Amino acid sequence: MTSPLPVLLPHVPELQVERWFKTDAPLSLDLLRGKVVALHAFQMLCPACVAHGLPQAQRMHALFGGRGLQVIGLHTVFEHHEVMEEAQALQAFVHEYGISFPVAADKPQGRIPTTMRALELQGTPSLLLVDKQGRLRMHQFGRVDDMVAGAAIGELLQEPEDDCSADGCRVNR
Amino acid sequence: MTSPLPVLLPHVPELQVERWFKTDAPLSLDLLRGKVVALHAFQMLCPACVAHGLPQAQRMHALFGGRGLQVIGLHTVFEHHEVMEEAQALQAFVHEYGISFPVAADKPQGRIPTTMRALELQGTPSLLLVDKQGRLRMHQFGRVDDMVAGAAIGELLQEPEDDCSADGCRVNR
Amino acid sequence: MTSPLPVLLPHVPELQVERWFKTDAPLSLDLLRGKVVALHAFQMLCPACVAHGLPQAQRMHALFGGRGLQVIGLHTVFEHHEVMEEAQALQAFVHEYGISFPVAADKPQGRIPTTMRALELQGTPSLLLVDKQGRLRMHQFGRVDDMVAGAAIGELLQEPEDDCSADGCRVNR
Amino acid sequence: MTSPLPVLLPHVPELQVERWFKTDAPLSLDLLRGKVVALHAFQMLCPACVAHGLPQAQRMHALFGGRGLQVIGLHTVFEHHEVMEEAQALQAFVHEYGISFPVAADKPQGRIPTTMRALELQGTPSLLLVDKQGRLRMHQFGRVDDMVAGAAIGELLQEPEDDCSADGCRVNR
Repeated sequence: MTSPLPVLLPHVPELQVERWFKTDAPLSLDLLRGKVVALHAFQMLCPACVAHGLPQAQRMHALFGGRGLQVIGLHTVFEHHEVMEEAQALQAFVHEYGISFPVAADKPQGRIPTTMRALELQGTPSLLLVDKQGRLRMHQFGRVDDMVAGAAIGELLQEPEDDCSADGCRVNR
Repeated sequence: MTSPLPVLLPHVPELQVERWFKTDAPLSLDLLRGKVVALHAFQMLCPACVAHGLPQAQRMHALFGGRGLQVIGLHTVFEHHEVMEEAQALQAFVHEYGISFPVAADKPQGRIPTTMRALELQGTPSLLLVDKQGRLRMHQFGRVDDMVAGAAIGELLQEPEDDCSADGCRVNR
Repeated sequence: MTSPLPVLLPHVPELQVERWFKTDAPLSLDLLRGKVVALHAFQMLCPACVAHGLPQAQRMHALFGGRGLQVIGLHTVFEHHEVMEEAQALQAFVHEYGISFPVAADKPQGRIPTTMRALELQGTPSLLLVDKQGRLRMHQFGRVDDMVAGAAIGELLQEPEDDCSADGCRVNR
Repeated sequence: MTSPLPVLLPHVPELQVERWFKTDAPLSLDLLRGKVVALHAFQMLCPACVAHGLPQAQRMHALFGGRGLQVIGLHTVFEHHEVMEEAQALQAFVHEYGISFPVAADKPQGRIPTTMRALELQGTPSLLLVDKQGRLRMHQFGRVDDMVAGAAIGELLQEPEDDCSADGCRVNR
C-alpha cells in the first residue's frame, strides 16, 4: 500500500523566530531531524485557533510528546499587529491557556510575518507535519479532524528515520 | 523508535458468525490477511456503543475504508438475549443507524457468545485492531479517543505486509 | 410583553396507552392538570431520539421534575413494528438507557399508533409542552435547542394555574 | 408554585463603565428597567469565558434579544491588566469574536475593577440576571447549563413588570 501522505516539500524552510516561550532553548527544524514535528500556526485572537487548533495541539503533545512527536506553536500575527505583537500579551495568553509545548513568535515583516510567508500559510489555524527526514508531509488550513490528524501522526512516527534499501542507506539532508 | 503498538496475540481466533449484514459474502480474518481490520464489538441496546463506538467505526470506515482498513461490527449479545438475538431487530437497527460496513451477529453460546468468549472481550463497546499479518495489536474496552484510534490505524496501515529483512522474507501464517 | 408561547390547542387529546413503564400508576393529562407536562415522543430505533431527544428529556426531568414539570416519554412506533412493539424490547431499552421518568407505549392502531395520530405528530423525536391548564403550548418535531426548551419550561412553570383577573377567576376545563 | 428564582438583591448597583463597544449610546441598568438584563462578566484571556460564557451569551442575544432580554458583556479585568486593559485589545477581541451585543469595559480601580467589586463577582465567567424591576435574580460563577439559563430567562421574561395585587400596584424604584 502506498503511503497516503505525499511529500509536499523535500525541505521545509527554517523557522524564523522573534521570541520563544515554554522552552529553555530555541528549537529549529534542523535540530529536530529524526523527530516528527507538528507545527500549529495560530493567532491569539483567532476564535477557531482557540476553540479547535490549540486544544488539538495540546492533545497531540499529551499523547505523542513522549513518543517522538515535537509539537510547536507558531504565533503568526497578520491582523491586529498592534495588539498581538506585544510579547507581554502572548506570554499572558500562553499562561492563561496552560499551553505546555514550545511556542514561537514568528518574526514580523510587514503585514505577513517571515515564517508564515516562507511556509505559504493560508491563514490560521494551520497544521503542518514535518517527517523525521525534514520533509513536509501535511499542510492543512482550518479545522483538522482528530482521527485524520492521529492517523497522519501514527504513520509518520512509524516511518524509518532513514531511507535504507538494498542499495544502501541514503542520508537525508 | 520502537512501535507503540505491541503484539498482543500472534494469531487472532477466527470470527464465529451466526449471520452477516451489509456484505454480499461472509468475511473472515483469514481472508482479510494483508488488510488492517478494525473490529467493533457492540450491542444495539448499549448506550455507549450507540453514542460513541458505532459513530467512531463509521468515521473509520469513511476515512480509511478505501485505504486498506476493513471495519467490521460484531454484535455480541450478552444481555437481553430474547430481545437482541432477533435477526429482525439487528437488521432494523443496522438500517436505521445507516451502518455501511459489514456487521456480524456473533454465534450464540449460552450467556456469552462464541467470538466474544474466544476474544476475551470485557464488554461493549470494545475496539480490536488486527494488523496485516493477522496479529492482535489493540484491544480496548470502553471509549477510545479519536486521535489515539487514528494514530493506531495510521501506524498499522503504514506497516509492511510481510517481515522482510536482510535474511529474507518470513511468511506470516 | 406578550407571551412568546401561543396557545396551539385549547385542549390536548388524552394519551391512549398500551402499557406504562417506570411508574406505579398510569398517568393522564387530565390528572396532571396544574402541572406542566413535557411529552417526548420517541422510537427506540430512532438515532436522533437516542442521541438528542431522550438525553434532553432526562435533563428536563432532573432539573425541573421537582419543581412542577412532569416529563413523559411516549413510544410511538410507526416503523419496524414487529421489532419495536415488543413490550420486552421497550422494557430492556428503558432499563439500559437508565430512563427515570414514566414511559408510555402508545396504543397500536395500524401503521400510526393512536396517540401519535391524535396529536398529529410529524415523526420522532417530537417535544410537546402542555401548560398547567392543559393547553398545548409547544409542538416541535426534530432537535430542540436546550436554551429554547429551558425558556419555554421556565415560562410555563411561572404561569399561574388559573386565569384570575379583576372580574374573577375563570375555571379552565 | 413559588418562583424558583429568589430575589438576591432588591437593587443592583449601577454599571461603572470606562468605555462601551457595540452600542451607539451608553446603557445603564436604570434605563433598562422593564427589560430583563443578562450580564456576562468575562475577560478576553479567560479560556472558559471564550469557550462557554461568550458563546452562551451570543445564543441568548440571538434567541431572546428581540423578546425583552438585553444581553451585556462586562469586561472585568483582574489579571494581566497591562495586556487586557488596552481598549485596542478589547476592540480587536470584540471584532474577531463577532460579538454583537453591547460590551462594557469595567472602570479600573486597583486590582479589582469598580463594577466587579460592587457586584461582588467571584471571577469570570459570571452570569447575572436582573429582572424587569431591577432586582438581582441569578448570580452564578462558572459554567451555567443552557437549559438552566433558558429556564431562568423564560421565567423572568414571563414575570409582570410591576407588582400589582388586589391592593393596587406598587411602583418599583
